[in-house]
Amino acid sequence: MDTEKLSAGPCPVSHALAKAGDAWSMLILRDAGIGVTRFDAFQKSLGIAPNILTRRLSALVAGGMLERRQYSERPPRYEYVLTEAGRDYLPILHALAGWARKHGDGAAMSKLVETGSGRTIDPVVVDRHSWRPLGDLSIAIELPEKGAA
Amino acid sequence: MDTEKLSAGPCPVSHALAKAGDAWSMLILRDAGIGVTRFDAFQKSLGIAPNILTRRLSALVAGGMLERRQYSERPPRYEYVLTEAGRDYLPILHALAGWARKHGDGAAMSKLVETGSGRTIDPVVVDRHSWRPLGDLSIAIELPEKGAA
Repeated sequence: MDTEKLSAGPCPVSHALAKAGDAWSMLILRDAGIGVTRFDAFQKSLGIAPNILTRRLSALVAGGMLERRQYSERPPRYEYVLTEAGRDYLPILHALAGWARKHGDGAAMSKLVETGSGRTIDPVVVDRHSWRPLGDLSIAIELPEKGAA
Repeated sequence: MDTEKLSAGPCPVSHALAKAGDAWSMLILRDAGIGVTRFDAFQKSLGIAPNILTRRLSALVAGGMLERRQYSERPPRYEYVLTEAGRDYLPILHALAGWARKHGDGAAMSKLVETGSGRTIDPVVVDRHSWRPLGDLSIAIELPEKGAA
């Protein structure tokens, strides 16, 4: 899908998908969220072809979700670390995981717990002002005013 | 990406991406969330090739996110309506939209408002038990027990 076309309109979902709109990119972010930083480790975790991984990592760096840092000079080696925008993306993946656990046809899946207490975490998307779940709200989309930026 | 492979492991993010792991599928669900039901309307809204739209709609029906309903006998015509699982997916798209608005490089984007009051809705992913934003929690992944289902 054409990412330029995706980010041309006013729809923020399209803008987000222009930056990470495929399963590989989301799984790379997932792995980065559990501490994976190096090319070989991503490759091993994902079973992804090196050329695809290179392309996806570059796109995530260009999109401001990962930062590429050199960790060795000889030979030159790089690691990939989540930026603030990348870290902000992780709760969305957790919400996606919660959805899959709820609608997952009974497959055994890993769960989210709080470090220390071991308490299960159950992600839900709420409105930051009213703290009501979005699924309970009557919602409309308001287009930006013409000329707004 | 191979959806069978994606849904083989215990990772719920992979399971979710096996059902809707590409930009087209997510945009179809987005459109279904604002009331689009018919093939022609999806095609017009998305500018998507008919063969790709057919494939994505079938996959979303097979994955239990859309229901295919006949609305005309002669000629036979079908519409696509969100199931409960599909409706449950919408808050994730809203969270994704919120992320794009925050990290969107200043592009003018549509916003979410509450019908009636017109109040802006700001989606955030919280833990349903503690009501704390996931970004503020220290989180670990717990694998399912062997043999659990």
